[in-house]
Amino acid sequence: MTASADLAADRLGTPELLRSVFRRHAAGVAVITAAGERPVGFTATSLSSVAAEPPLISFGAGTGSSSWPVLGAAEHVGVHILGEHQQELAATFARSGTDRFAAPTRWRNGPSGVPLLDGVLAWLVCRVVARIPAGDHRIMIAEVVSGEHGNPGRPLLYHQGHFTGLRD
Amino acid sequence: MTASADLAADRLGTPELLRSVFRRHAAGVAVITAAGERPVGFTATSLSSVAAEPPLISFGAGTGSSSWPVLGAAEHVGVHILGEHQQELAATFARSGTDRFAAPTRWRNGPSGVPLLDGVLAWLVCRVVARIPAGDHRIMIAEVVSGEHGNPGRPLLYHQGHFTGLRD
Repeated sequence: MTASADLAADRLGTPELLRSVFRRHAAGVAVITAAGERPVGFTATSLSSVAAEPPLISFGAGTGSSSWPVLGAAEHVGVHILGEHQQELAATFARSGTDRFAAPTRWRNGPSGVPLLDGVLAWLVCRVVARIPAGDHRIMIAEVVSGEHGNPGRPLLYHQGHFTGLRD
Repeated sequence: MTASADLAADRLGTPELLRSVFRRHAAGVAVITAAGERPVGFTATSLSSVAAEPPLISFGAGTGSSSWPVLGAAEHVGVHILGEHQQELAATFARSGTDRFAAPTRWRNGPSGVPLLDGVLAWLVCRVVARIPAGDHRIMIAEVVSGEHGNPGRPLLYHQGHFTGLRD
């Protein structure tokens, strides 16, 4: 802990402190999808395995996002683990004002009508069991219904505002 | 998606499917600490930033873990982002039947009496605002109170049952 780091933290408000500290954290990259009047999906760095019995996962979702009107009512979601070769797909599903499911995105309708993306390392279809309010976000909790391994490969990571990968 | 992958998924129960899919996921490594009659702490791969206003984080905690009697009642927690040089510390805080705070672990009492580990990339002290039941785990939600950047460095990662790091 250097003196300059102390001072920098003291000057920050807590939202900026949170953002600054999490720039040092790294996370695996997932895309969450759901089906309503239209397919929706977004890139998430908050995907986590929560419990094994019953098998539950969680992720965060912003209530102000373009996906929320569908995601907030969806019974099922698609959860995709992205590979390091899928940086472009991750960027597409993080971009505003674009049709994320248009070419070159390759997808199909999966179990329970959930949009499933091609070429991922693995996917799950999960049934939403809770949407927990947390500020302007919801923590989504969902139970695993089905899934498959996809392409072999190494995971895509996110760190300091950039996509990256694991060392060899 | 190969035929053999389909068959493998079909043969698995959903808890095994969850575990199998998350072996392909990668996660940053954190240590969560809290103070009660004794300091407790555990290695977590579920740490996530949830919302900026108010600044909230979340992580999962097993109610059967040795840390839970303290963590389940704690008002504040310490959240530490581990660096790739801290693999041994991560292993210590994941190991059963050991005093995780004994030497060579270096720590001190921080704000609100929270145990703070030395040598981490960054730390936060957070006030617990919710413990959401999720199977045999709780999803802990906590609001950022204070924090600091620590040593510069690159984050420690967890993938396929091993600690690793980012590529250059």
